Amino acid sequence: MKLTIRKVLKRLQEPITAEMPDSTVDKLITGEPDTIVTGIATAFMPSQSVIEQAIAMGANLLIAHEGLDYSHAGSAADLAADSVYLAKRRLIEQSGLAIYRFHDGIHRYRIDGITLGLIRTLGWEAYVSEHRAAASLLTLPRWTVRNIAKHLKQRLHVPFVRVVGDLDTLCECVGIAVGYRGGGATAIPLFGADGADLVIAGEGPEWETPEYVRDAVRQGKHQALILLGHAASEEPGMAELALTLQACWPGVPVRFLKDAPLFQWV
Amino acid sequence: MKLTIRKVLKRLQEPITAEMPDSTVDKLITGEPDTIVTGIATAFMPSQSVIEQAIAMGANLLIAHEGLDYSHAGSAADLAADSVYLAKRRLIEQSGLAIYRFHDGIHRYRIDGITLGLIRTLGWEAYVSEHRAAASLLTLPRWTVRNIAKHLKQRLHVPFVRVVGDLDTLCECVGIAVGYRGGGATAIPLFGADGADLVIAGEGPEWETPEYVRDAVRQGKHQALILLGHAASEEPGMAELALTLQACWPGVPVRFLKDAPLFQWV
Repeated sequence: MKLTIRKVLKRLQEPITAEMPDSTVDKLITGEPDTIVTGIATAFMPSQSVIEQAIAMGANLLIAHEGLDYSHAGSAADLAADSVYLAKRRLIEQSGLAIYRFHDGIHRYRIDGITLGLIRTLGWEAYVSEHRAAASLLTLPRWTVRNIAKHLKQRLHVPFVRVVGDLDTLCECVGIAVGYRGGGATAIPLFGADGADLVIAGEGPEWETPEYVRDAVRQGKHQALILLGHAASEEPGMAELALTLQACWPGVPVRFLKDAPLFQWV
Repeated sequence: MKLTIRKVLKRLQEPITAEMPDSTVDKLITGEPDTIVTGIATAFMPSQSVIEQAIAMGANLLIAHEGLDYSHAGSAADLAADSVYLAKRRLIEQSGLAIYRFHDGIHRYRIDGITLGLIRTLGWEAYVSEHRAAASLLTLPRWTVRNIAKHLKQRLHVPFVRVVGDLDTLCECVGIAVGYRGGGATAIPLFGADGADLVIAGEGPEWETPEYVRDAVRQGKHQALILLGHAASEEPGMAELALTLQACWPGVPVRFLKDAPLFQWV
């Protein structure tokens, strides 16, 4: 029996245990559920480059964590006449590539699939003390912020990370908050209520968690924050998803497509 | 006649020409309007370090662009038991320092006072082609992104900026979007509708404007984005405010208090 997009999407939903939000962003943005799958690509962002790579590898289904239109909630109203957006949509239409956005679902696996992918890529699964919905807590062997930053850069292939706090701070209780969970609502309680020495996050507004940690350090507390970048924190989960799907259907080419780092640091 | 806080706040409002939002974040967070002013400090962020500096210089009024509680809208509910926040509040109470948040008002001066402060610090006032409410457009002499980034770092004393795009791109039409206006709603139309070669912004979600510019570059467009960091983009406006107030009341000590750069880049 041929593999349809519908069947792949059904498989993606199976590990979801937490309740989905009323208004989920997850959906088949382009393509039809009954199409026979010739190849599957997964990616953090359905960028122009990723779409070109998906087409080049012969995939006709791209499973992307973020949306097509440079906004979380997917309101593309302002892009109706935007030449960059329209050129990308044209390429997708001409290629017949189906794109499924898979954001809310994978974050609601029994253990958040994006967080778990990051922790596994770091080789830190044995250090996990608690998985929560929006963050995981780890007990590390009192490494310094400096050594942790070095490890993160090596494992995630990022040229730089942004750090608040003293690089010599020893970190035992560490919170991991992927993506935009670096915002104050999620990350600040990891310090204040959970006693984290360090939070490793994707990104978040600069005036929230970074300024909190700056104040904490000024008050003499031994706390630190490492911002990985949104993509670096969430790519491993989408890479792991490709391995899972490949194991389900060994006869279908499945690949994780990685973008180059988003920023140059000048 | 002695200078009261009330009188200083009245002076701050005078240049406001645009309508204030229904629910403004601007307010006297601590202190009383009838207190006699002994010294005035201005700052981007009322951080622990800035508050200590304000007290040390003998100021009893701090005019800060952002809030005390690590959130834009000022809902400090989650900080009720947070030791970092409580220690900062205690220091403020013990010192008697009055703190006025001045955010919405200065952004609504006839020309946005924060944007104008940045443009003046860069020495670019002569290049302005249009001031708008949320951004300004400049016509520069076709400098490269590389040279512009170097100039920004020197003038604003920031160790690094984040760049999307080719460093050799020549920039003539440049948009300036301070603070969090680097988000897609404000910054993407500067490229798409206004034809900017470069947008210089404070910060914004990574999946919005940065991913848009990455796609544009991949499609062969000569566009670039420079993210300065939120503080670096807004400090000059608060520094200029200190000069303005000093000129109003030469007998009162007035100083802009600058924090060290928020992040280390590791």
